[in-house]
Amino acid sequence: MRIDETHDPARSSWVESAQGHRDFPVQNLPLCIFSSDGRERRAGVAIGDFLLDLPAIADALGDAWVEELSQPVMNAFLALGSGPRVALRKRLSELLSDEAHRDRIEPALLGQSEATMHLPCLIGDYTDFYVGIHHATNVGKQFRPDNPLLPNYKYVPIGYHGRASSVRVSGQPVVRPSGQRKPPEAEVPVFGPSRRLDYELELGIWVGPGNALGEAIPIDQAEGAIAGFCLLNDWSARDLQAWEYQPLGPFLAKNFLTSVSPFVVTPEAMAPFMTAPFTRPDGDPEPLPYLTGGSDKPGLGLTVSAALTTRKMRDEGMAPHRLSQGVAADAMYWTAEQIVAHHSCNGCNLQPGDLIGTGTLSTASPDGLGSLLEISQGGKAPLTLPTGETRSFLEDGDELILTARAEAKGYVSIGLGECRGLVVG
Amino acid sequence: MRIDETHDPARSSWVESAQGHRDFPVQNLPLCIFSSDGRERRAGVAIGDFLLDLPAIADALGDAWVEELSQPVMNAFLALGSGPRVALRKRLSELLSDEAHRDRIEPALLGQSEATMHLPCLIGDYTDFYVGIHHATNVGKQFRPDNPLLPNYKYVPIGYHGRASSVRVSGQPVVRPSGQRKPPEAEVPVFGPSRRLDYELELGIWVGPGNALGEAIPIDQAEGAIAGFCLLNDWSARDLQAWEYQPLGPFLAKNFLTSVSPFVVTPEAMAPFMTAPFTRPDGDPEPLPYLTGGSDKPGLGLTVSAALTTRKMRDEGMAPHRLSQGVAADAMYWTAEQIVAHHSCNGCNLQPGDLIGTGTLSTASPDGLGSLLEISQGGKAPLTLPTGETRSFLEDGDELILTARAEAKGYVSIGLGECRGLVVG
Repeated sequence: MRIDETHDPARSSWVESAQGHRDFPVQNLPLCIFSSDGRERRAGVAIGDFLLDLPAIADALGDAWVEELSQPVMNAFLALGSGPRVALRKRLSELLSDEAHRDRIEPALLGQSEATMHLPCLIGDYTDFYVGIHHATNVGKQFRPDNPLLPNYKYVPIGYHGRASSVRVSGQPVVRPSGQRKPPEAEVPVFGPSRRLDYELELGIWVGPGNALGEAIPIDQAEGAIAGFCLLNDWSARDLQAWEYQPLGPFLAKNFLTSVSPFVVTPEAMAPFMTAPFTRPDGDPEPLPYLTGGSDKPGLGLTVSAALTTRKMRDEGMAPHRLSQGVAADAMYWTAEQIVAHHSCNGCNLQPGDLIGTGTLSTASPDGLGSLLEISQGGKAPLTLPTGETRSFLEDGDELILTARAEAKGYVSIGLGECRGLVVG
Repeated sequence: MRIDETHDPARSSWVESAQGHRDFPVQNLPLCIFSSDGRERRAGVAIGDFLLDLPAIADALGDAWVEELSQPVMNAFLALGSGPRVALRKRLSELLSDEAHRDRIEPALLGQSEATMHLPCLIGDYTDFYVGIHHATNVGKQFRPDNPLLPNYKYVPIGYHGRASSVRVSGQPVVRPSGQRKPPEAEVPVFGPSRRLDYELELGIWVGPGNALGEAIPIDQAEGAIAGFCLLNDWSARDLQAWEYQPLGPFLAKNFLTSVSPFVVTPEAMAPFMTAPFTRPDGDPEPLPYLTGGSDKPGLGLTVSAALTTRKMRDEGMAPHRLSQGVAADAMYWTAEQIVAHHSCNGCNLQPGDLIGTGTLSTASPDGLGSLLEISQGGKAPLTLPTGETRSFLEDGDELILTARAEAKGYVSIGLGECRGLVVG
């Protein structure tokens, strides 16, 4: 991917809050769907602390893509692929950085705190992968200490279908799910609220142009099928999962809620931050040919973090406690492009607006574990918080906050925004 | 469910082909979405060899539900629940049986052979269950001869999420999927077309009114969430499945295509044919309380059949060869109502137009096995066809035909139509 003038570090915006903004300097320009004042949902772009209302500046965009950007979801715009996405980015970069456009554009800005954020797409299908090799190893160790990774792991980008209807945007309360669980010592299962509610720190991939049923997306075209990235929390009920998951995989343990951050951070915004993929240890097999090739730097150079606040911490005015932090590319045994090529290699049709989760992103370091299952070693080693409270799993009143930042020498850093969820009883 | 005058066996239609029709006498009246002559998709009802165009008779329906029935999918109408569905059925039964309405209604009939059938709903989520206990046992035996059923089976209605984007209506060609497979004797997997392509004989459940995220559907309200039934073929690539499915379940082995019959046969049409549920063997545990209760006769009294033709059989003008036949209620360890209650018990939101598969419906009898995996014992006992051809799995040019019939003493039998698929190379 070419890095163009929209990433010029000298470029700044007349929107003052964009300068040095943690997530949304003028070098980012992520897309979103928002509403305000009871008006209809429409497309926007984040800049500093504001959203720019795209249908409201249709004339300044040359009346291009007005229909696609005026819809309550972004599927139609993402379906157009990289050409229109790149053109929109370039134009927005000009409009927001050149003072000459300020009078025309400024009235279409809205404070983010005044807007309601919505899912950016109508999600046809949501698929969750399992490409975090350290996570797979950590979880596998709890079940099979001598043989944590199954024989297929280093050949197959493992994935499964999740629930599209229960994907929600950041801020959706997490209702503790009920279900069957069978304590190890019990004869029979019991039904009731989960006692082992967990989060999973993941990235989400938004699909742009898809493929027709029966036709695969070759890996050298997989980059073109990706429209953007977000944070994703794959909330998980570990006790339900342990009892239900054989032989067909997780179901009620996961499908009660999946949370995503509201902003679609485009491949163009990510261009300077793409990096080498995961380094396969010596002796690992080469990927099969259909998973070999693609772009030069398919690794996601995003530092992803999870943090927790408890009710007590918030009452005492304490900052969120960081649970983990690590670089996605160091966790992902398979790249986003390999995920797309694998998902479609049997002719399965991906569609614009589909959502794909990477799987939990744990690094090899003890401070890079992307779930409480790993941090507390399945409950055997509870975490102690600054308040003295302990956690093996999430308790009512806990709030989880996922963030991600991309940094590269010579470029202005960008972020993905936040993905939050507060556990309610 | 009350059985009303629409099931009066003396009631006949002025549509002559409806009398004694295998599937669509006036006692059935299944809903569908069709198009013809390049016009837009719209709702219809099958009667004999015809479809009745519902928007075209809006005045005779009292202009009720015109908006819902004029859409290209039936989600909005199914969302209305049983009240409007029952009222529409009663009115259609009158219009199609009373000769006085013939002049008004007949011009809105169209030969089924002239229509293109479409999916009845925009499927938000497709879930596949595994309630066929004999299937689960037969498949389990191939992996674990001494312990075929996993410990959770008799407590948990096992299910997993499937792919909504690749659900297609009957007649869609089956493109043989490629993927990774690892022959038992091989060191490493290879990539290529599946060599163990199979079908699975299932029923599909169309969801009517759903539930809000975070709120369960209690089992005594589960019947009301069901809008109808269809045939479903869960095409499966067994070699891909064996290699990929651990630990998160089937994925590429299934998501290349799922076929359904085009007609939504309503609970009202099925009322006389509902029967006792599966008889649990002595010693089996009672269902947990959240899966206990519901309607008196939740069992599906549908005789489901699978048949095969090969290219040679068709060239020689031979009839399809029946592969299996059995009654759904004799195969289903869990009822449709238990499926709905379980699926939503954690707060997972079901939505109008969602599709739920039962899982493969094999009976205890050797002539009631719902997949080639079972019939050929994993390829060890190939089936011999009347032409002398043998089959362990499906070959290019094979066509699978699923059908189902409901019969009950004193009532006119109905059917679900057909679900066909021709395997192409």
